[in-house]
Amino acid sequence: MLFIIGLGLGDERDITVRGLEAVKKCDKIYIEAYTSLLSFGLSTDGLSTLEKLYGRPITLADREMVEEKADQILSEARESDVAFLVVGDPFGATTHTDLVVRAKKLNIQVKVIFNASVMNAIGICGLQLYRYGETVSVPFFTETWRPDSFYGKIKKNRSLGLHTLCLLDIRVKEPTLESLCRGRKQYEPPRYMKINTAIEQLLEVEELRGESVYNEDTHCVGFARLGSEDQMILAGTMRQLLTVDFGAPLHCLVIVGETHPVEEEMLDFYKLTDGVPRQNDSETA
Amino acid sequence: MLFIIGLGLGDERDITVRGLEAVKKCDKIYIEAYTSLLSFGLSTDGLSTLEKLYGRPITLADREMVEEKADQILSEARESDVAFLVVGDPFGATTHTDLVVRAKKLNIQVKVIFNASVMNAIGICGLQLYRYGETVSVPFFTETWRPDSFYGKIKKNRSLGLHTLCLLDIRVKEPTLESLCRGRKQYEPPRYMKINTAIEQLLEVEELRGESVYNEDTHCVGFARLGSEDQMILAGTMRQLLTVDFGAPLHCLVIVGETHPVEEEMLDFYKLTDGVPRQNDSETA
Repeated sequence: MLFIIGLGLGDERDITVRGLEAVKKCDKIYIEAYTSLLSFGLSTDGLSTLEKLYGRPITLADREMVEEKADQILSEARESDVAFLVVGDPFGATTHTDLVVRAKKLNIQVKVIFNASVMNAIGICGLQLYRYGETVSVPFFTETWRPDSFYGKIKKNRSLGLHTLCLLDIRVKEPTLESLCRGRKQYEPPRYMKINTAIEQLLEVEELRGESVYNEDTHCVGFARLGSEDQMILAGTMRQLLTVDFGAPLHCLVIVGETHPVEEEMLDFYKLTDGVPRQNDSETA
Repeated sequence: MLFIIGLGLGDERDITVRGLEAVKKCDKIYIEAYTSLLSFGLSTDGLSTLEKLYGRPITLADREMVEEKADQILSEARESDVAFLVVGDPFGATTHTDLVVRAKKLNIQVKVIFNASVMNAIGICGLQLYRYGETVSVPFFTETWRPDSFYGKIKKNRSLGLHTLCLLDIRVKEPTLESLCRGRKQYEPPRYMKINTAIEQLLEVEELRGESVYNEDTHCVGFARLGSEDQMILAGTMRQLLTVDFGAPLHCLVIVGETHPVEEEMLDFYKLTDGVPRQNDSETA
């Protein structure tokens, strides 16, 4: 049996009781390493926090390993109970559809244990989840690669009065240019896009495309470390948020569409006043 | 302190470890009774399962009570730790914004503990969450009240190739017509819209409006009891799903937009073949 278990957003305490029971009875435990594992006490150096909690070793599975060793993971899942742990929800921002499809084709039973994802946790800012349009991704621009497909999608959302969730780029285990040339694997340090960079890139594309989709006065909400003890949620214009230091990853950004009074009332609590938020933004237990 | 704690979707084991720790140290525990509490072992008769787990009495709070007794709940939260439990995620389909806004205005600290919501758990069917448009609600039609605002929204989503999540009506603690006349409170038995009814109503509106937004051959995915042991997920045309008995509540429905091959591949596992699903749909632990 293959268990795909969501870990939620904060730290090791955000797994569900159902998820914890399942992982404790599994023979082998993998954890996906595509997103930030910092708050789970996980790094390539040590897996201490989670391993202590589960009383068992955990294998860190990056994208490469899941692709290369899927056969191994699946053959283990055929013989015994295997847990594949995923930050957030198994089918949230990052998907593990491929592993699930392969398992199902082999008639290996798959059980999914849900958890919170950034896709629903952004509801905390007061903007109604059902009033969001299509979600967009903002990739790191390079000298030569500046894809802007998000622009057209934001335009459509805004023309319908809808809010837009922008997921910001995560680069984990990217091979260095040098290593690609030499054929020896070396990796860039992980990079997580900050809200400031995302807004800079958004404004650059608006400048180029000039279709007046948004501008420096467009209202947004910035989220950092959603679900953690020190999560930060700030509402303000792009100009205001551009200069805020949101600190450590992960960050995401919402571009606010048309708002209802009840949405405004809630958003007010997160607004910057003279550059300072109205109240402490640490909201989780 | 006011804790707003998501219970997740299945049963009492779907609370997070963080949530369980918080609720155990709270002096007073309320649970919202706007949605189905059946799988949490909760009814007006007894709160046994959760009360046993928490070792403490729980007050069932319907919408009326939260509106009428918000002052009481908030004054308790000022003096001590109060938990307000919510099925799914606190800011998922049902929102509790009003209570949070009132607490914040009174400078009462609010802590939110996230969990899975139907808004992200539908990702299990393989349709990518970022490719959904605006969510719509399908209300129970009556003789004289047949609101169809969902139609225009589905039209916009489909014109953009996006999937649409349809949330189906829940009627809990609706006063009877008789009781409204007599001024004495009596309530209708709770009603939860089934997928069949939703599809009937959708097709009726298409018939009336005639803008070819969808028809009997439009592909959909029906979900029942998402997150429970006996959850049911079936993909098929509106015509096919119209005759399926999805069993006990809660139900929801997704109208499939344009699909990518990877989405199709996953969806195939949930498709009806000769009226029978390809495999067992019980997918959670």
